[in-house]
Amino acid sequence: MALVFSSGSATSGPRSASKILNAARDVLSAQGYPALTIEAVAAAAGVGKTTIYRWWPSKEALVADALAEIFRADEIPDLGDTHAELRQAVDMTIDNYTNEDMATALPALAASLLPHPELMTRFRETFLHRKRENIAAALHRGIQRGDLPDDLDTDLVQDIWAGTILYRRLMTGSPLDTDLAEHLVQLTTKAPPLLPRRESPRTSR
Amino acid sequence: MALVFSSGSATSGPRSASKILNAARDVLSAQGYPALTIEAVAAAAGVGKTTIYRWWPSKEALVADALAEIFRADEIPDLGDTHAELRQAVDMTIDNYTNEDMATALPALAASLLPHPELMTRFRETFLHRKRENIAAALHRGIQRGDLPDDLDTDLVQDIWAGTILYRRLMTGSPLDTDLAEHLVQLTTKAPPLLPRRESPRTSR
Repeated sequence: MALVFSSGSATSGPRSASKILNAARDVLSAQGYPALTIEAVAAAAGVGKTTIYRWWPSKEALVADALAEIFRADEIPDLGDTHAELRQAVDMTIDNYTNEDMATALPALAASLLPHPELMTRFRETFLHRKRENIAAALHRGIQRGDLPDDLDTDLVQDIWAGTILYRRLMTGSPLDTDLAEHLVQLTTKAPPLLPRRESPRTSR
Repeated sequence: MALVFSSGSATSGPRSASKILNAARDVLSAQGYPALTIEAVAAAAGVGKTTIYRWWPSKEALVADALAEIFRADEIPDLGDTHAELRQAVDMTIDNYTNEDMATALPALAASLLPHPELMTRFRETFLHRKRENIAAALHRGIQRGDLPDDLDTDLVQDIWAGTILYRRLMTGSPLDTDLAEHLVQLTTKAPPLLPRRESPRTSR
C-alpha cells in the first residue's frame, strides 16, 4: 500500500492503515467531505486520533489516500481497435465519477488544495498522472495505426473527456450513459482536424 | 437584489445584505470555502450572527447568494456571426472560472449540495439555467443561419465547454487561454456531424 499523502514512509503505514482508510470512505459516504472529521474517522476505525495524526497531517491528506485506493487508472490493453480502446478509457473515467464519494469528494478536495501549490502537485501526481499516461498510450497507438492525427492534443482530449463527465456528475446531473461515452469517443476518432496542437497564437500563453 | 437562497423574501433582504455578501466573498478569498464560517462573515461585515441566520439558513445558502451576484450569465448579442457569438459564450464561461473564489467555491458548493436534491435544483436554477438559455439562444441562431446542424445537442455542447474549462481550472491547472477558447468553438462549428442528439440506444437512458 502506497500512502501518497501520508507524512510517514511512502510505502508503509500504520498496521491499521486499511481499517482507517475504509473508515474514512464510510464517513465520507455517510456525512460528505465538508462534515468529515478526523475524530469521526478515528471512532469508526476504532483507533485513537493520534494514530491517524501520526500518519496523516490533515483531513485532506487522509481523504486523498482513501480516494486514491479506489481511483481507477488502469492500463488500456492493446486491442488492435482504436475505437474500442478509447471507449475503455472513457468508460473508466465514467466509472470513477459514478462513485458517489469520488464524485463529490474529489472536486471538493481539489478545491481545498488549489491554494497550496505543493499539495496540488502531489494531488495531480496521485490522481491524474498515471491515468493520463495510460490513456495517452492508447491515443498514441491510435495515432500509430493512422486512426488519429499525428498532432492530436492528447492532453486536451483527456480534459474534454474528464471535464464533461465531471461537470455532468457534479453540476447538471445529466446521465453518464453509453450515449455520452460514444459521443466523447467519436469527438476524437471522427474529428481528426479538430484537436491538433495549435502552433499559434503563442502570445496568449 | 434577488436573494435566491435566502430564507426571506426572494426579492428583498436585510438592509445590510450587500455588506454581508461582500464580506462573504472576502472571507472566501482569504480562507477558502471549507474554512468559511458564519462567525467570520459576521465579524467581517460588522453585523451579528443572528442577522445572517435570520436571512440565510446555512453557510451553503449564504455562499450561493454571494457567488450568484458575481456569476456571469449574459445574453449573447446577435452579431450576425456564429463563430463570434460562440466565442463570446466560451469567453464568458472562462471568465466565470478564472475568478479564484468562483473556481474553488462553486464546485465545493455543488459537492456539498449534491446529496440534497431540492437544494441542488435551486443551485442549478441559480447558476446554470439562465446562462445555458442565453448560450442556447446563440447556438440556435447558428442553426438558423445554417452554420450548425439542426439536431445539434446544445446541452452536450455546453457540458463540453464548461466541463473542460472547470476541469482545467480545478484539476490540471492547464491554461484557460485563447487556444482553448478557439478549440472549444471549432469543436462545435467545424464538427456538424459530431454533436447531434443521438436517437439510440434509448435503453441506456
